[in-house]
Amino acid sequence: MSKLRPSLELVVPVPVGTWGLDGVVKSLRQSREETHNIRYRGQIRELPSREALQRILDGLSAALFPTHYGQPVLTDESIDYFVGDKLNTALNDLAEQVRRGLLFVSRQGDEDDAQPVVKSGHDASDLDREAIEITRNFASQLRHIRDVLVTDLQAAYHGDPAAHSVSEILVCYPGMTAIIYHRFAHALHNLGAPFLARLISRIAHSGTGIDIHPGAEIGSSFFIDHGTGVVIGETAVIGNRVRLYQAVTLGAKRFPADESGSLIKGNPRHPIVEDDVVIYAGATVLGRITIGKGTTIGGGVWLTHSVAADSNITQAQSRNI
Amino acid sequence: MSKLRPSLELVVPVPVGTWGLDGVVKSLRQSREETHNIRYRGQIRELPSREALQRILDGLSAALFPTHYGQPVLTDESIDYFVGDKLNTALNDLAEQVRRGLLFVSRQGDEDDAQPVVKSGHDASDLDREAIEITRNFASQLRHIRDVLVTDLQAAYHGDPAAHSVSEILVCYPGMTAIIYHRFAHALHNLGAPFLARLISRIAHSGTGIDIHPGAEIGSSFFIDHGTGVVIGETAVIGNRVRLYQAVTLGAKRFPADESGSLIKGNPRHPIVEDDVVIYAGATVLGRITIGKGTTIGGGVWLTHSVAADSNITQAQSRNI
Amino acid sequence: MSKLRPSLELVVPVPVGTWGLDGVVKSLRQSREETHNIRYRGQIRELPSREALQRILDGLSAALFPTHYGQPVLTDESIDYFVGDKLNTALNDLAEQVRRGLLFVSRQGDEDDAQPVVKSGHDASDLDREAIEITRNFASQLRHIRDVLVTDLQAAYHGDPAAHSVSEILVCYPGMTAIIYHRFAHALHNLGAPFLARLISRIAHSGTGIDIHPGAEIGSSFFIDHGTGVVIGETAVIGNRVRLYQAVTLGAKRFPADESGSLIKGNPRHPIVEDDVVIYAGATVLGRITIGKGTTIGGGVWLTHSVAADSNITQAQSRNI
Amino acid sequence: MSKLRPSLELVVPVPVGTWGLDGVVKSLRQSREETHNIRYRGQIRELPSREALQRILDGLSAALFPTHYGQPVLTDESIDYFVGDKLNTALNDLAEQVRRGLLFVSRQGDEDDAQPVVKSGHDASDLDREAIEITRNFASQLRHIRDVLVTDLQAAYHGDPAAHSVSEILVCYPGMTAIIYHRFAHALHNLGAPFLARLISRIAHSGTGIDIHPGAEIGSSFFIDHGTGVVIGETAVIGNRVRLYQAVTLGAKRFPADESGSLIKGNPRHPIVEDDVVIYAGATVLGRITIGKGTTIGGGVWLTHSVAADSNITQAQSRNI
Amino acid sequence: MSKLRPSLELVVPVPVGTWGLDGVVKSLRQSREETHNIRYRGQIRELPSREALQRILDGLSAALFPTHYGQPVLTDESIDYFVGDKLNTALNDLAEQVRRGLLFVSRQGDEDDAQPVVKSGHDASDLDREAIEITRNFASQLRHIRDVLVTDLQAAYHGDPAAHSVSEILVCYPGMTAIIYHRFAHALHNLGAPFLARLISRIAHSGTGIDIHPGAEIGSSFFIDHGTGVVIGETAVIGNRVRLYQAVTLGAKRFPADESGSLIKGNPRHPIVEDDVVIYAGATVLGRITIGKGTTIGGGVWLTHSVAADSNITQAQSRNI
Amino acid sequence: MSKLRPSLELVVPVPVGTWGLDGVVKSLRQSREETHNIRYRGQIRELPSREALQRILDGLSAALFPTHYGQPVLTDESIDYFVGDKLNTALNDLAEQVRRGLLFVSRQGDEDDAQPVVKSGHDASDLDREAIEITRNFASQLRHIRDVLVTDLQAAYHGDPAAHSVSEILVCYPGMTAIIYHRFAHALHNLGAPFLARLISRIAHSGTGIDIHPGAEIGSSFFIDHGTGVVIGETAVIGNRVRLYQAVTLGAKRFPADESGSLIKGNPRHPIVEDDVVIYAGATVLGRITIGKGTTIGGGVWLTHSVAADSNITQAQSRNI
Repeated sequence: MSKLRPSLELVVPVPVGTWGLDGVVKSLRQSREETHNIRYRGQIRELPSREALQRILDGLSAALFPTHYGQPVLTDESIDYFVGDKLNTALNDLAEQVRRGLLFVSRQGDEDDAQPVVKSGHDASDLDREAIEITRNFASQLRHIRDVLVTDLQAAYHGDPAAHSVSEILVCYPGMTAIIYHRFAHALHNLGAPFLARLISRIAHSGTGIDIHPGAEIGSSFFIDHGTGVVIGETAVIGNRVRLYQAVTLGAKRFPADESGSLIKGNPRHPIVEDDVVIYAGATVLGRITIGKGTTIGGGVWLTHSVAADSNITQAQSRNI
Repeated sequence: MSKLRPSLELVVPVPVGTWGLDGVVKSLRQSREETHNIRYRGQIRELPSREALQRILDGLSAALFPTHYGQPVLTDESIDYFVGDKLNTALNDLAEQVRRGLLFVSRQGDEDDAQPVVKSGHDASDLDREAIEITRNFASQLRHIRDVLVTDLQAAYHGDPAAHSVSEILVCYPGMTAIIYHRFAHALHNLGAPFLARLISRIAHSGTGIDIHPGAEIGSSFFIDHGTGVVIGETAVIGNRVRLYQAVTLGAKRFPADESGSLIKGNPRHPIVEDDVVIYAGATVLGRITIGKGTTIGGGVWLTHSVAADSNITQAQSRNI
Repeated sequence: MSKLRPSLELVVPVPVGTWGLDGVVKSLRQSREETHNIRYRGQIRELPSREALQRILDGLSAALFPTHYGQPVLTDESIDYFVGDKLNTALNDLAEQVRRGLLFVSRQGDEDDAQPVVKSGHDASDLDREAIEITRNFASQLRHIRDVLVTDLQAAYHGDPAAHSVSEILVCYPGMTAIIYHRFAHALHNLGAPFLARLISRIAHSGTGIDIHPGAEIGSSFFIDHGTGVVIGETAVIGNRVRLYQAVTLGAKRFPADESGSLIKGNPRHPIVEDDVVIYAGATVLGRITIGKGTTIGGGVWLTHSVAADSNITQAQSRNI
Repeated sequence: MSKLRPSLELVVPVPVGTWGLDGVVKSLRQSREETHNIRYRGQIRELPSREALQRILDGLSAALFPTHYGQPVLTDESIDYFVGDKLNTALNDLAEQVRRGLLFVSRQGDEDDAQPVVKSGHDASDLDREAIEITRNFASQLRHIRDVLVTDLQAAYHGDPAAHSVSEILVCYPGMTAIIYHRFAHALHNLGAPFLARLISRIAHSGTGIDIHPGAEIGSSFFIDHGTGVVIGETAVIGNRVRLYQAVTLGAKRFPADESGSLIKGNPRHPIVEDDVVIYAGATVLGRITIGKGTTIGGGVWLTHSVAADSNITQAQSRNI
Repeated sequence: MSKLRPSLELVVPVPVGTWGLDGVVKSLRQSREETHNIRYRGQIRELPSREALQRILDGLSAALFPTHYGQPVLTDESIDYFVGDKLNTALNDLAEQVRRGLLFVSRQGDEDDAQPVVKSGHDASDLDREAIEITRNFASQLRHIRDVLVTDLQAAYHGDPAAHSVSEILVCYPGMTAIIYHRFAHALHNLGAPFLARLISRIAHSGTGIDIHPGAEIGSSFFIDHGTGVVIGETAVIGNRVRLYQAVTLGAKRFPADESGSLIKGNPRHPIVEDDVVIYAGATVLGRITIGKGTTIGGGVWLTHSVAADSNITQAQSRNI
Repeated sequence: MSKLRPSLELVVPVPVGTWGLDGVVKSLRQSREETHNIRYRGQIRELPSREALQRILDGLSAALFPTHYGQPVLTDESIDYFVGDKLNTALNDLAEQVRRGLLFVSRQGDEDDAQPVVKSGHDASDLDREAIEITRNFASQLRHIRDVLVTDLQAAYHGDPAAHSVSEILVCYPGMTAIIYHRFAHALHNLGAPFLARLISRIAHSGTGIDIHPGAEIGSSFFIDHGTGVVIGETAVIGNRVRLYQAVTLGAKRFPADESGSLIKGNPRHPIVEDDVVIYAGATVLGRITIGKGTTIGGGVWLTHSVAADSNITQAQSRNI
């Protein structure tokens, strides 16, 4: 073995410097003051915590699929205690995050200065009551969410020749994680917790490369394979038994502005995808168009108009030069 | 400085609600019972642990590249102790994860109810013996794996004008992480631990955006630049000195079903890419076709037929409207 | 409830095997020795730590946006203490990481054996001094960096109809994270800390799917929506008010080699994108071309030639078969 | 402010030395081999884990006193789920630790070589069955344990003029922690898990300075104030309503050896303390003597003979020199 | 080397048992209900958190002695930012813990059922205001606390021949930790936060073996050497320049009960120790007696009467039998 | 079940206050400046880290007793790799802590201002060399330390009738922890690293209640039972086969001061305890006296004069009043 190291040697140390701290601190204070128009000027608001939300998502996943996302050693006598306690902890924590998120709602007719505000007429105990109500409604939907997720799981097993077991899908498929998180996020979005729902979709995006806006409506038996780069927009509507591959975009074609130049927010601008559609890798489908039932869209296709049921759309061919 | 806060103010607290826990717990139990056909009804099986596997991958990487992935201060007298202990810990832990994974193997001819089962004829001590045998064989391949990874490292250094050192590649290039993990996963896949191999590829995918199925055969001096969105399918075969860019798909064209409507699993359905091929960003290559030696495939190309050696394939031109 | 578990049952245990450790350790030592030409033969060098750098980035983000990335309960009397202490800790730690990174600089005219070396003429105290100088200069740019980031934040708010508040953008938008990290990385790159800058871009890429080389010049009011798969090359130049969508590549067309076959490193090879350009999802723009002011490039476009100001480039149409 | 630091200075770095590792490793191996007579020569045995046991103790404490040692926000609908899940986790983990501990039982008639062995006639599944049986019996005693602990709690409240609430006692009194842990340990000791019980007493000792052997029998309404240095021996018997102060020893007077010179283990050798006895700080009570009902023993007393009921024992007076 | 292990062997696994959970949960619920008289029946109260308090104590210690308990690399420009931010965080967190503690105050004239209650006339915003007021007053005393602690530090240096530096005392002497924590606790006790003060003394006791009630008045230049087993009672009064050794008790002699049999709480019952007294190891001093200025009390002395100034008290001699 | 909680309720929130931070920070700065005479005015010195030292002690313990303090699953092929790597890590880290400790050495003849200083004639590379030399010598003593610890282990097994196995002693006996740490500390003390040795004894004291100064000389087959409150002074000398019980003090009788009033440091002032002595609980032995071979000293004895070999010393009797 060659000599790796001599027997006595110095590792060069960390230097100790001065950074002009007073000046930097002062200049940053000035920057904050000059951009006060994008800073909020009201009561103290705590942002929802991404770490807390991750724990909540883990807890909800464990409550829905206890042996796969919870713990393997659960017996007949213990499983309901496990599920009940996981739910209780997750829902308590969720209520607090929902409450925080309710403080971050945009002021209508006031987009020019980007000032989010508390919904008018809300005081603290209203907020508490609203957060609890949203969370209780969310809890009551969990059984339905689980039932639909089971159809997604079956769709993945039947839709991928490389899938060997449902356990493999639950544990190894980013598309499964993405749809579980989306179904949680979508329920919260509809119940009036859009900020929190958005943060859930951010967490899913970061871990899977799949970016589904919580507003998107997605039917049962939904399957995304591989998934990196998939984008599904806020007003997209997707039917049952739809299958997507990596890098598929269901996006908006253009963003109309109002007379003041501000973007008009919230209008339907993403595709409607009917039942039994398959969209292959890299296809881009834009605008409020309808993809008819049973259609297949080939990889890399660029599509901005509606197509009839049972269509088969492919890309222009490449050429050999 | 403007008034940021008054001197005494309340942060609104977490609300305490009731969630109808008994009802939710009961409904989830019903949902589990109604979907019992996708639940496993046998002995207790612990799933391989993603956290444990991440530690094992870190340990194996440290054993192969001690000063880059292990610790910088290693001397001639200490390096073999370090490597030996890292290996021993990683291999002990790997044996346990392999054992767990062996319990998740699909039942042949029984895809209709998605029931994974223990391989017939396997009892606990058979499983132990098999897990140990797989792990011991894996250990004996580590030197070969390291040798091939060194060719990948050199390919990255020579293939990217932005690369300034091998250290930069080992530390900063997602493609390097992806190929290290793939070479571990592929060895385990071939040795009979497909579930575990799949979970390794999931970990790599999550951290790099690169999704390589463990079944894919990849030659030496392989380099993926940037890498986000790359997908390489289960039966793909890639030669030596191949270079891929981000969002390249080597996928299947279609998924033939048997007469019962179930997908036929395992047949060759992904491309064969011969030596010295370069495939640029966003190209999609589908089906059991052959890309001849030395071919260049341009970015965004959609390709579903074989091409001869030394071809140069480009996309149809865009137009200015 | 059906019987989940019998009352007494064994979980199969971890097997204890032997791995032929002596042989594997010896073979890995041989592999290290045989590939010594890619191993560094000098003083001990500690690599910059990804974990330390993540903490530094968190600290700098908190110093720039204290209530969003720091802590919500900051008062007039406490905010400057918070900012000052976060800065001091982050800058002390940064100086150490910069120092480490300075040891990994490639030897000019010596690419054939991939040997990174210490810059000639540098001894330990020179390195300390240089690291401190770089860090102090970096500190003095923080106010400017914050001012530009505020324009990026406003661009996101005004550019995405789904954005409801600046808080949502700061917390939920991967594009915001990517540009914050890039502006830190670019400053360090220009100040002479390229290795460290590269590691920052790797961290950003891993968390967002957006891969921006630290060398890229990017103007103010920059916005990337969704972002997965975006790649921006080392020598790209981007003007003000530019908007990109997911999977856009601003890449190099070809990599010229010198007469010895080695790639020529560092020459301008990525696009110049002028002010007010919008590039939609999946577009690939390659080579040292210029995209004129105000141009719109459609999704999926493949572009390798310059276009005039106010152009509108779209992809060839797909066809219905 | 005086000059704390110059602006540029080196922190002296960690030295890199060589330690003669091969020689030290070899000498330690020789030491292990030469002292093989105190090393166990049988199957692999995992020691009970102190960290796991601490978690188990936390879990059991939370199950018994959910709002003080568990979590404050428990509602009527959630508290039983919480208790049930805490119990299930703690009991599952306890069974494993009990199983480990069962492997460490001394071989009768073989004290000369200090060789602990597996109880004869025990194979692995016997051990499992025994560990489960012990744990199930332990579970069935938890209600009784809680009831007695409530009497201890009341004794502390009524016995210390400085105690202002039961919450203060549960949270701030080392004596309360010691008696909770002892009652768990004593139950396990009696059920046949002495090693594990001993480890629990070690944990209690480390955190409170109170050292109670798990074998000691202690009646209800027991209170130790301050507690540092209290030692209660293996065969001590303590009645109801007994109060001890810091540094009280209830120890053995002498340790008789058998003819071979080995200590005779297990015979009664510690005091019997009857009901309603108070023993003040620093008193030392040794041997199998009886302290009659209602007796008060003064601080610092040294006592090696029995005393009648209602005695009042004090130390010889100090003198002023 | 002898054979440590055969090459293939089983580690016995964790057994899976059933615990009769439903029964245990039910019995514990019954136990809680039957002992409802020691359970609190009011609003939800969160107990002060020992972990939070430990962090607060670390923060306050760092603010007072920044280079010893904070971080070594502090410069003239950074030290005040460090101190200010540590203080702000610690004081914010302290206010919350003080608020929690205020809810645990015993109901006067109601000791018979051990029911702690909220102070009458307190609602939530009163509590907030009181917690903030206590914390602000505490902050204003920190400079004084530091000044006194410096006299303690000097007393330790001059009082122990084994002490080689003040750094050694700050880092290695349990007596120093105990007095720092006591001075914090005493200030809070006097300001009206007795529960929190008590929890601080519990933390100090657990880490040092020294148990000082927060109510004790202790003068400057105080030094405890070794310290294990020292107990100082609630109403003790200690002058300046007093030195104690391990296992010294300054306790109460008896606890008078009122006519109902309840202990009378709060009356003076511990010794007054005047200036310049030294008390050696194991001495026990009980009751509201006065130890005159300059007195020396020998090790192991048992003392229940006052002694004049400059006395020299020693224990009765041992005898050789 | 009684109503634990209503269904909607507020938890009172953390208040937000202002603390007069500027004033407190300024006053603390003044306090630091006024007490500058006990502050060090030289180069930056990092204190040895208690956390790092705990890790080092864990590593050394694992290297000496691999299956008890390391990991249970070690095979013939892996145990030396484990020991070697544990040692290397622990010794590297120890060298750094030794180096730090060397900076804290008191200035001779300068006790009046409590100024510790760097030993004269030491510059940074001298320090490195000295730290490495001390650590290398320490490494060479490890085999001897292990051999002696094995005699201590046997003494515990033979000395305590409650001990059932050597594993129980290694895992559950605080006296064993104390003597292991002391033998490490004593070796470092003798090699010239007194500050570090002192910190090790502090760690042992905190976890066991046993306070042994690193300077104390202790022979083989040493056993401390229970141990809380044991204090052994700096210049104590203890023979072979000595047994101590809890609360035994081997201390100094008086501390002579020099003419300036400063304590004389370092002179012999603690007892010499010859072979085969037993000292029972609570005995206090003070001054440079000699306890003759084979002597037994009873519990609670106060002894300040030498006693001949084979003496039997007991306390004056208590009396019944």
